[in-house]
Amino acid sequence: MRSVLQRKTIRKYTQQEVSNDLLNQLLEASLHTPTMGNLQLYSVVVTREAAMKEKLAPAHFNQPMVTAAPVVLTFCADFRRTSLWAEQRKAQPGYDNFLSFMNAATDTLLYCQTFCNLAEVEGLGTCFLGTTVYMPQLIIDTLRLPRLVFPVATITLGWPDETPPQSDRLPLRAIVHEETYKDYTPQRIDDCYGAKEALPENQHFVEINQKETLAQVFTDIRYTRKDNEAMSQGMLDALKSQGFL
Amino acid sequence: MRSVLQRKTIRKYTQQEVSNDLLNQLLEASLHTPTMGNLQLYSVVVTREAAMKEKLAPAHFNQPMVTAAPVVLTFCADFRRTSLWAEQRKAQPGYDNFLSFMNAATDTLLYCQTFCNLAEVEGLGTCFLGTTVYMPQLIIDTLRLPRLVFPVATITLGWPDETPPQSDRLPLRAIVHEETYKDYTPQRIDDCYGAKEALPENQHFVEINQKETLAQVFTDIRYTRKDNEAMSQGMLDALKSQGFL
Repeated sequence: MRSVLQRKTIRKYTQQEVSNDLLNQLLEASLHTPTMGNLQLYSVVVTREAAMKEKLAPAHFNQPMVTAAPVVLTFCADFRRTSLWAEQRKAQPGYDNFLSFMNAATDTLLYCQTFCNLAEVEGLGTCFLGTTVYMPQLIIDTLRLPRLVFPVATITLGWPDETPPQSDRLPLRAIVHEETYKDYTPQRIDDCYGAKEALPENQHFVEINQKETLAQVFTDIRYTRKDNEAMSQGMLDALKSQGFL
Repeated sequence: MRSVLQRKTIRKYTQQEVSNDLLNQLLEASLHTPTMGNLQLYSVVVTREAAMKEKLAPAHFNQPMVTAAPVVLTFCADFRRTSLWAEQRKAQPGYDNFLSFMNAATDTLLYCQTFCNLAEVEGLGTCFLGTTVYMPQLIIDTLRLPRLVFPVATITLGWPDETPPQSDRLPLRAIVHEETYKDYTPQRIDDCYGAKEALPENQHFVEINQKETLAQVFTDIRYTRKDNEAMSQGMLDALKSQGFL
């Protein structure tokens, strides 16, 4: 638990390689993560070549860790392997639908998180790139993902070359509901977000973005309706062309 | 890593309670899991009351661990808290769309898996219920989940009262692709699935289901096209009524 309690996202890595032995040991141990019907509905594409990192970078808004990290891992929801197996065994797969995408995405994200938990225990640093679902078609094309394979998570991985402060988190009482969902009153919202808003780094963040409130930095700059709606359409289109919708 | 390497799904639990202190300690440590923009797009509904477990059970095909486990945890993608916060801070949230659902579901599943990894280190047993996305509307109604909240994972939790054998897994070479996706040839499919198909427990599984191949047990009985398509529609309908589509 100590590793999780001290966890920080690491975006800068030393020049030291991550050995294939260690990487495979971590990927293999993570296979014990729960998976639907023990079907293991995921694949991982390992990127080490500089040229491939350059090609992936635009899909991740050219965040510098994509090209600087020794390893980039793209975790993909994968019903293709299972479907090919079925076809080869006189069985008729029916996994070209949205539920099957959700099942595979779930398997994949759970697997990815066990991998990150284990990697961090070993002292490795990780950065989870949420950009993976923003322009999935770019990743699909770059990694040549066939039908029924869809990227859902990307991790940059390496030995830490920075010691950033740990990010704040909401108090647990903001997250947990007893027996049924207890909707948030205005008072409870203040209680949940007050400490976060009072942090000097978050006040500075509001200031440099020339906004009035921290929430406005998110709604007006970082995650806007316009971007979310455009990227929703892009993701739905990609799900359709990969055969999941 | 030892805990992950020895991991088994636990479906039978002793009568011993899981204390609120331990549960909260695990839920709190897990908050350090990566989350989009540090927004923590999840909520957890904790079910301990017998009457609530009875109400939840049908959504999980009445699997006995739902009513027998001391604790049932429903992990929900939640953009409601963030949206209410924004509205209360002169900001206009734009998170009623599919991308935002995927972002919140991702946060939620990563959080859930860190929780499971930590719980298992403490000796607790968990069972991940994939049924959560099968009839989400039933769970939404039972737990009174409002707009922009959606159940994506359920865990039953308790102290183990069984020592099942560990499930087999595909070899790592079935999962990993170097640089780009290497599509599966018939020979490679045989290589990936051969050992699994040869296991006595899997051969027995084919026999009792009166099928010719293991793959047919999945396609014809456990996860059929007909069910998948019906449940896809149910999930899309529920996403629409919760405001995410």
